[in-house]
Formats: sequence, C-alpha cells, structure tokens
Amino acid sequence: MKGAYYEGNKRFSVGESKIVPPGPGEVRMKVAYAGVCGTDLHIYLGHMDQRVKVPQVVGHEASCEIVDVGEGVTDFKVGDHVVLRPTDACGKCPTCERGDINVCPSINFIGITSPGAFQGSWTVPAHLLHKLPASINMVHAALIEPLAVACHDVRFGEVTDKDYCVVIGAGPIGVLEALVCREKGARVVMSEVNPARVKLVAEMGFEVVNPAETDLVKYVMDATGGDGADVVFEVTGSQAGAEMMTKLPRTHGRIVIVAIFAEPKMIDLRTILWREYTVVGARNYVKQDYEEAIRLVASGNLPLDKIVSDVRPIDRVQETFEQIASGSANFMKVLFSCSD
Amino acid sequence: MKGAYYEGNKRFSVGESKIVPPGPGEVRMKVAYAGVCGTDLHIYLGHMDQRVKVPQVVGHEASCEIVDVGEGVTDFKVGDHVVLRPTDACGKCPTCERGDINVCPSINFIGITSPGAFQGSWTVPAHLLHKLPASINMVHAALIEPLAVACHDVRFGEVTDKDYCVVIGAGPIGVLEALVCREKGARVVMSEVNPARVKLVAEMGFEVVNPAETDLVKYVMDATGGDGADVVFEVTGSQAGAEMMTKLPRTHGRIVIVAIFAEPKMIDLRTILWREYTVVGARNYVKQDYEEAIRLVASGNLPLDKIVSDVRPIDRVQETFEQIASGSANFMKVLFSCSD
Repeated sequence: MKGAYYEGNKRFSVGESKIVPPGPGEVRMKVAYAGVCGTDLHIYLGHMDQRVKVPQVVGHEASCEIVDVGEGVTDFKVGDHVVLRPTDACGKCPTCERGDINVCPSINFIGITSPGAFQGSWTVPAHLLHKLPASINMVHAALIEPLAVACHDVRFGEVTDKDYCVVIGAGPIGVLEALVCREKGARVVMSEVNPARVKLVAEMGFEVVNPAETDLVKYVMDATGGDGADVVFEVTGSQAGAEMMTKLPRTHGRIVIVAIFAEPKMIDLRTILWREYTVVGARNYVKQDYEEAIRLVASGNLPLDKIVSDVRPIDRVQETFEQIASGSANFMKVLFSCSD
Repeated sequence: MKGAYYEGNKRFSVGESKIVPPGPGEVRMKVAYAGVCGTDLHIYLGHMDQRVKVPQVVGHEASCEIVDVGEGVTDFKVGDHVVLRPTDACGKCPTCERGDINVCPSINFIGITSPGAFQGSWTVPAHLLHKLPASINMVHAALIEPLAVACHDVRFGEVTDKDYCVVIGAGPIGVLEALVCREKGARVVMSEVNPARVKLVAEMGFEVVNPAETDLVKYVMDATGGDGADVVFEVTGSQAGAEMMTKLPRTHGRIVIVAIFAEPKMIDLRTILWREYTVVGARNYVKQDYEEAIRLVASGNLPLDKIVSDVRPIDRVQETFEQIASGSANFMKVLFSCSD
C-alpha cells in the first residue's frame, strides 16, 4: 500500500506505506478514505515547516478499519470500523487538568507532528479512536473529523432552535457548521463570494448571500426585525469577514471565531462593548463533539455527498494539492482512497 | 441653587438650577455630590455633540436626597437618601424584551440626553432610584454609579475567589473593578503607566505593574506557573492595551472589554482562537449591579476616600474640566458639592 510523503517546498512524493506493528495501547489500521484539510494545504505551502519533519505522511481526516491490535487494547478488535480523534493532549498541564484538552499547549496533532492518514497502513493510539456503527459508509466517515470541528463550533455558539445564525464563509467547515445549525432547528444564512460555492450551498437548501452583490447587514436586519443575528461564525480569516462579524449580531449576540487569522485584524471593539457581544474562539474538538458528529452522520440527514467533490487515489496527491492551492478546481472536499 | 451648563466648544456656564416640580412617577431631589465621569469629559471635548443639546446640565454619578414626590410614587418619601440608575431603557424593543435593558439601542441616558446631576435640584423618574441605607455617607454614595459599572464588569468576567485577574488601566473604573475582584477573593494585578496612579493603587494594597518598565506578560506567566490569567479587564481603550489583553489569559480565559474604543484596533484573533478565549463587552449595569454596589459601599470595606481626589463647588466646573482634560492634576475622581 502507498503513502503520500510531504517533502517540503510544495512537493509530495508517493512511496510505500510503512507497516508499523502496534505497540502497547496501539492499533494498526487500514485507511479507507482520507480528506484534505486546510491544515494540509498550509503544510503543503510551507507555512508549518517548523512543526513538520520531512519526509512526513500528513492527513488526519480518515475512515479506517482495524487490522491489528496491540497489547492491552480491549475496547477494539480487528475488523472494527473507526475514526481517529487526532489531538493527543499531554494530560499533565494546567489546561489538561481543567479538561480543556483540545487546546493543550503541548498537544500532539497526529498528521502534523507525527505520521498521518494519507497512507494505506496507519498505527495510532487506541484511546483516541471512536467506533463507527455499521450503517455509516466509509466515504461519509472520512468527514467525521471536520464535522466534529463544526459540532464543537456550534456548541460554542450555544445555538438553539430559536436562533438566527450567519456563517461567513462557505468552505467545508462553514458548510458543515451550517448543517449542524440546521439540524439544531436554527435558521441559517451563509455568506460567500465564490459563485461555485454559492451555487453548491444553495443546492443544499441554504439561504446564501454574496456580500459583494447584496448588503448582508441589511439582509440580516430586515430578516430579524432590525434586531440582528443570534450567532455569527467567522470562517474566512479575512479582514472583510472580521469587519462583517461585528455588524451582524443582536445585542448580547455571539461571535464564534473559527478561521485561523494569520495576522492581527482591525476589529471594532466599540461595538463589541456597545452591544455586549460575546466573542469566543473555537478550536479542534473533544470526545462529545466526535460522538455528536458520528450520530449526525449515522442519522443519514446530512447531504454529505454534496460536500465530497472527488475521491481519487493517493498517486494523484501532487496534482490535487496544486489544484487546491490554485483554486482552479473549486473543490469543496477531496478524499484520497488510501487502500487501493 | 446652582447648575453647571455645558454650552458646547469646551465651555461650561454656571447658572440657576431650575426647580422642576415632579410629574407623575417622578421625584425631585437635592443633589449632594456628583462625580465627573469619563463620559462627561467626552461631552466637554465635543465628542458627543450630536447627542447633547446645549445648554445642558450633564453629570450622572450622584448622591441625592428626595425633597418632593410626584403622584403615584409610593416607594420613596421626602428625606430618603437615594442614588439614580441613569439608564432609562425603552422597554419595548427586542433587546428590552430579552431583559438586556442596559444595552437598549434607544436608551435614554439621563445626564447625556436629558438634564443631569451637576445641579442642586434634579427631577427624575422614581423607578430608576435605589434607596440608600443610613450608614452610607453621601460622598461615598456618589461613587455608587461607577462602582455599579465595576460590579457589572466583574460579573461579566465571572470572577471567583480562585481567579487571577489583571486590570489593564488604573483609572477610576479600573480601580473599582480591582476592588470588586479583591472583594470576591480573587488575586488582582493592575497594569498602569501613569506614575501617580501606580503610587495610588499601590497605597491601596494592589500589586501594580508598569508595563513600560516591567514585562507584564512574563510577570503574569511567572505568577501563574506559565498558565496565564483567568480574567483580564481592558480599561485603557488603547492599541497597547488591545494587544496586551490577548497575551495574558490562560486557555479558556476571559477578556472583558470595558473601555470605549473610539477606533477599530488591531486584534490577535488567532490567539483568541488558539486558546479558546471568551471576549465579552460589558457596558452600563442593571438593577442587581446597583444593589451589589450599594452593599459593597455599606460594608465599609472599600477604601473609597482614596478614590475621591477632591470635592469642590459647582462654580469650579470650567477649571475642573480643563484640569482633567490636560491631565495636569492627576485626578482619580473629582466630585462637585451640588447643594452649596
């Protein structure tokens, strides 16, 4: 079986996936499908070269089947379908002692600082696995990791069925957040400037506004009787998004920061004060977010096929990252078929 | 009795305080002492000329005694010592219907959009009054309004006796916040660059750091085992404060925005995400904040005399605002004696 190795300098090589026998507390898995995350793109572009030792197999959004079980592993057996929660916290620092293990400053993010999922054989700690019900197909299961991000974000947004939510940015995480909000019974509006994404989310049944064409603030105020949105998710990482996010909420509304802002942005703190907003950062996930994501995928309610733009062999890794980086293909989510 | 009238263009005139008989639901009060707020300074500087009709008596931090009671007022009687909560919400908008009356978009702030406290006779709605216990002296009572702001801010900070708090900016509101945090049993560090204020808060028993001389981030990290502060209050409105506020909290820490930032500032949203901070705006107060402030003043635990820099007659209003605007006198809080 093959593996895709990041070599630095925007290059991947395709080599053999090393068969690593599972140590105590570990399992070895066959990777079925693995999705490309924005983080993988950052790695490809060299933004994370300080953290990633080359050559390194990256990727962390994967559906897997257990093929070997290490000493002391009792909760899982060969043949189980599983997904990995790739954030391995230190367990010892003040953050972990508070239970906030998703933001442990010493976190080991599997697929960044240790070998990842773009390969046929993957050996990982069993304590980070979640078992899948048989009803979930493995293509959909590869979306559980980003869906767990969305579940975490929506939980931090404290979204209820009474809420009017705006998601700024209809990339994979934004779309998954919108789906989770909709599952909670909330009304959701997406903001997106890319026409292909506008079209896709409209096909998924979402209200969608292109803020380059339509006055989004007026749209939201008109829809809420001049009150404003209950919850706003900022998923663009742009100055335009950072400005928009403080214009949309009602008094005591919530803003959830989801995007990774590479640089500080100009923020209207006066309005945060004036309307007593709550702004929260939401990053990664914990166990309960994974459990909710698995429940949602198992429900069959989510139009996940719409999100999967293509499934392709690992051999096409270099071409795929070039296409994503250039934006030429308008992908939402690309999966690699890792066991071919 | 006299009144201080804002005339526009950095000018006050001193004239007669008009005796306005109380209408239904109103009381007329003799104002004992009234403090100068940062908002009054903004008015003096012309920043709020769109809201303030000249000539206007301003001021809203006052201790008063009721001298006349209008029709239908049953909760108060002549001779009662009271303080006014000067924020009169519309009561009808979605914000008010949610109970968030302190941020009602149509709020009437008495002393800005209607006659204020820098006068001997003041007629106001009785439903905004809080009765004072006899034990509270009227000089201290004039500090209840800003102390209620501090109680509101600390409540939004969710401060407990386990917390390490940093207050950035040791003006009157910052110092009152620090006092409220200390009353809650929290450890408090103040950050201040003005040497006179550094000296004053040190005399009040606070740890105080001048970030121009000492590395405040290192100071806080050293004091918390590298973890960070539980709660940070930003009370400067400066770019330096806006940058500092995201460097100090622990993972899942809280930042309370208290200062009015005239312009957008560069904010490190990446760290807000990375450590999953909660940033909240806190403005004005509600009834429970006033009740807490009255309890705290009645307790006698707060060194309020340290905060009162001077008590002077209304005749000195012009000189006083010139001194405050120039910073020449290093005032913390100046009160006018309004019934002389």
